Amino acid sequence: MGRNYHRNRTADTERLNFIALGGLGEIGKNMYVLEYGEEMIVIDCGLKFPDSELPGVDYIVPDITYLEHNREKIKAIIITHGHEDHTGGLPYVLPRLRVPLYGTQLTLGLIRNKLQDDVPTLRPEYHEIRAGDVIKIGVFTVRFIAVAHSIPDGVALSIETPLGRIIHTGDFKLDSTPIDGRITDYGALAEEGDKGVMLLCSDSTNAERKGITPSERIITGTLDTLFRQYRTRRIIISSFASNVHRIQQVADVASRFNRKIAFMGRSMIRNAELARETGYLKIDSKMIISMEEIWKYSDNQLVIVTTGSQGEPFSGLVTMSRGENRLIELGEHDVVFLLASVIPGNEKLVNNTVNRLFSQGCEVVYEKERQIHVSGHASSEELKIMLNLTRPQYFVPIHGEYKHLVRHSQLAQEVGINPHNIFLLVNGDILTFTPNTPPKKHGHVQSGAVIVDGNAAGSIKSEVLKERRELAEDGVIAVSLTVDERGKLIAPVAIETQGVFISEDSADIFKELYAVSEQTAQELSGHRANAEALKKAIRTRVRDVLRKRNSSFAVIMPIVSVKTRDNTNIYEKEFF
Amino acid sequence: MGRNYHRNRTADTERLNFIALGGLGEIGKNMYVLEYGEEMIVIDCGLKFPDSELPGVDYIVPDITYLEHNREKIKAIIITHGHEDHTGGLPYVLPRLRVPLYGTQLTLGLIRNKLQDDVPTLRPEYHEIRAGDVIKIGVFTVRFIAVAHSIPDGVALSIETPLGRIIHTGDFKLDSTPIDGRITDYGALAEEGDKGVMLLCSDSTNAERKGITPSERIITGTLDTLFRQYRTRRIIISSFASNVHRIQQVADVASRFNRKIAFMGRSMIRNAELARETGYLKIDSKMIISMEEIWKYSDNQLVIVTTGSQGEPFSGLVTMSRGENRLIELGEHDVVFLLASVIPGNEKLVNNTVNRLFSQGCEVVYEKERQIHVSGHASSEELKIMLNLTRPQYFVPIHGEYKHLVRHSQLAQEVGINPHNIFLLVNGDILTFTPNTPPKKHGHVQSGAVIVDGNAAGSIKSEVLKERRELAEDGVIAVSLTVDERGKLIAPVAIETQGVFISEDSADIFKELYAVSEQTAQELSGHRANAEALKKAIRTRVRDVLRKRNSSFAVIMPIVSVKTRDNTNIYEKEFF
Repeated sequence: MGRNYHRNRTADTERLNFIALGGLGEIGKNMYVLEYGEEMIVIDCGLKFPDSELPGVDYIVPDITYLEHNREKIKAIIITHGHEDHTGGLPYVLPRLRVPLYGTQLTLGLIRNKLQDDVPTLRPEYHEIRAGDVIKIGVFTVRFIAVAHSIPDGVALSIETPLGRIIHTGDFKLDSTPIDGRITDYGALAEEGDKGVMLLCSDSTNAERKGITPSERIITGTLDTLFRQYRTRRIIISSFASNVHRIQQVADVASRFNRKIAFMGRSMIRNAELARETGYLKIDSKMIISMEEIWKYSDNQLVIVTTGSQGEPFSGLVTMSRGENRLIELGEHDVVFLLASVIPGNEKLVNNTVNRLFSQGCEVVYEKERQIHVSGHASSEELKIMLNLTRPQYFVPIHGEYKHLVRHSQLAQEVGINPHNIFLLVNGDILTFTPNTPPKKHGHVQSGAVIVDGNAAGSIKSEVLKERRELAEDGVIAVSLTVDERGKLIAPVAIETQGVFISEDSADIFKELYAVSEQTAQELSGHRANAEALKKAIRTRVRDVLRKRNSSFAVIMPIVSVKTRDNTNIYEKEFF
Repeated sequence: MGRNYHRNRTADTERLNFIALGGLGEIGKNMYVLEYGEEMIVIDCGLKFPDSELPGVDYIVPDITYLEHNREKIKAIIITHGHEDHTGGLPYVLPRLRVPLYGTQLTLGLIRNKLQDDVPTLRPEYHEIRAGDVIKIGVFTVRFIAVAHSIPDGVALSIETPLGRIIHTGDFKLDSTPIDGRITDYGALAEEGDKGVMLLCSDSTNAERKGITPSERIITGTLDTLFRQYRTRRIIISSFASNVHRIQQVADVASRFNRKIAFMGRSMIRNAELARETGYLKIDSKMIISMEEIWKYSDNQLVIVTTGSQGEPFSGLVTMSRGENRLIELGEHDVVFLLASVIPGNEKLVNNTVNRLFSQGCEVVYEKERQIHVSGHASSEELKIMLNLTRPQYFVPIHGEYKHLVRHSQLAQEVGINPHNIFLLVNGDILTFTPNTPPKKHGHVQSGAVIVDGNAAGSIKSEVLKERRELAEDGVIAVSLTVDERGKLIAPVAIETQGVFISEDSADIFKELYAVSEQTAQELSGHRANAEALKKAIRTRVRDVLRKRNSSFAVIMPIVSVKTRDNTNIYEKEFF
């Protein structure tokens, strides 16, 4: 770590910016940018699933305003692996940027499926690469390095820039016995470390965890025990559709126990198909049956592999747990293995699913009790190994909530990285490297969340979300007033409510609300009607009545229609 | 377990009902009823905190319709311990039933504080009991048995009924080294077991956990290590305000390290006061300072003990994490210990709090990394010991989600309880014991949730909650029409929205909505104005436009005002 990358200043343009547009302070929507002069590469393009703070929102992608303003600079989007938090933003981002995509075979296969669904007219420029490849993209020379993770075919990147080498780990673990035998390429990482690494950006997801993340292979042992224990029962397994290694293990154990496999759930069927076609999943086709055929087999001849490990409302497992799946009915002869961890935020959904499965009479094996899941991310000892293999001069922990980034930076200090050389960034921060001086945080680009809500992809106003939360809390009371040009009421006040809870003893409050609304209109009438002033007054006065009666905190929504002599104002109102 | 409690039939009235009004299929709102002839006792009266399915709801209490219909039968409400899920329903229930309350000193002290706040006019009849007491309440003879739990002074109940003995464990663990030395009274339980137990109702919370729940005392070791490790820093500790044992351990360690304690947060201050007054918490008063005095002490002389371990929005810890607490500002010289587990459903709140604390620059020690919390509930080996101590003929697992009840019933089978003698009940089920025949499920009483929303305590309609969820998802579009007696529009249509997201490319949709609304009114005019028919048509037509444009799924809220010649309909509308 004693190398010095501060070469002599050659030009003012000789500066390299590292910017995260997503992935810092959060798990999800990973997107990192390297910018040198007139050239840029983007690493990953993920989505994030919203929590209850974003009611009604389907998913969130990074705000790419900065990229849109620099469209002509972008030479490539490189995708490290096929998980949604690294690829899910593409249907939104790619039509807006139209730049070449780089990724490995399986990664691009998954992306192709997704883009065909979401933006079928798009014809992206795909560049398939393989681990080991070294590819020049503009001023950047990118070496792709194999890493083990919970999806096959993941890569880390070693990027030679004019100012020094940057290693971006992608998502990784140091599994010594991965299912596909494709070990994280220590050799390549060490080699890059020897050449000298200016900056390491490394996966912080499990920085809180001590020790080493267990090998994916241990799942085989657990499955073996479980298949033996429940040998007479029908076995239903729910797992992540993208975890091809785990599906491989299920298939291998199923084969040893002479059980057929039926895949269930669209993404499960499709991913298994893609992985088998591309050779990442090896299952004899005689072993695979369709869900329509399961009735032909007895319980101990079957394994059903389905989606729904996160309790997703319309997934195979959840519809089964509700007894609403036309293909299968659960009962006492069934056992369900939930081969997945619960992603934070999904606790309630998964828990409800487990309880419902029990109430269908079947046995359920889930995370708390058995080793049926291992993480795909490196724990603290592995992270220290990564730091020691690459020996970077500077370090930016990425891919994690703030607490993970703090813990990762503490690990880096433990292995001897100078605290001044560690940068705890937030999304949008510009970390600038120049030849002569140490890097520094140097301003901020627009960053944040673009919300995709149904078919409307765009940036939803935070105000709209605030309104939704308020509506959810206490409902809405709409008060409609129709006035003439002088603001005089020309029809009865009308009130409607949605989601409002008024206890029995204050049901008469509506009389008061009508009265106060009329009175307010009367007080404000006289000159020219002023709809905005009237709305404001109604909001205040109605709120006062509710508060005084300690009744409801509903949103007050006044609606004023002004009748003019010729009714010209019908289309006057501007909404946006 | 070979005893037979089916005595000869003496009268048709000789039947004993066990009914749960809350606590089965859920963690929370515990309430169990024993009914024999014209007499009833109620065990516990808890609340449950709502999840995101119940937007805006403050808390939930059991539906006590069945008790209200049988008010004169109820001889007592017995409270096993002072936790909210066993006491929190009292402010709602007690004014409606007005029956005597039985509980231990600390339990009643906590209840008294709560009732004084919420229903200050109520003067309940308190019966303070002590573990070991045997008290006759109507036909029931109740023996109170000490149990260890995460709050002092908890009891199990052994209830002699005319048909046999029932043991209700309350919440318990078999902590062999509790902080107050008050061990779960094995002797008494074994004695009751020897006399013969007809029915055991036992705490299922931790039935999923293997082994034995660690002793509360291990926290002292962890605290010792942490106080040593962070000896130069100011220490902030967040814990459950009711966990007096844990506060005792903090005080003991603080005293050894010569630190003063400042309590923060209303419930923390109040519970500590009550527990000290009653002798359950032993802290030298010289050690206690107020938050207003902390500036007088250096970092290494201070421990601040605060609420907020569940990320509660207005708690001490959360306001600190936001930098919004006027009494204290956090920084790099601080360390926060979160001495509590995360209650399911609170994951997000706690996680956000931890991340915010890190971003204030302080160090945070939380559950994942250290043994800083132990559960108050018995794990599976302890549950088996309870089953073997009491050797019941029949068994009803209580206090748990469905999965916990299933696991607990499996444990009971392991120790030899006949599966036919185990009853997996749901709230409201009547389990009837009669002298000659085995007990059986025998119908169902009204049960469910009463929702307390702000100051309005009552049963909120599920419709209202459905409306709130819909509002939260997509917002609301209100369409106001003012028509004359014949249904003809007499003023422009007015539209207002809340929480609605229309993407930029369909902002012109409002023109269409105005037009379609006008057209609808016109089509329906002619005869007598029919407001309901007009509203229905508007709802359909507006929804159609939105759907066709693939725009929004907002709630459509039509408001129709009908101008009659004399405007008599102002107060016509019925709301409830």
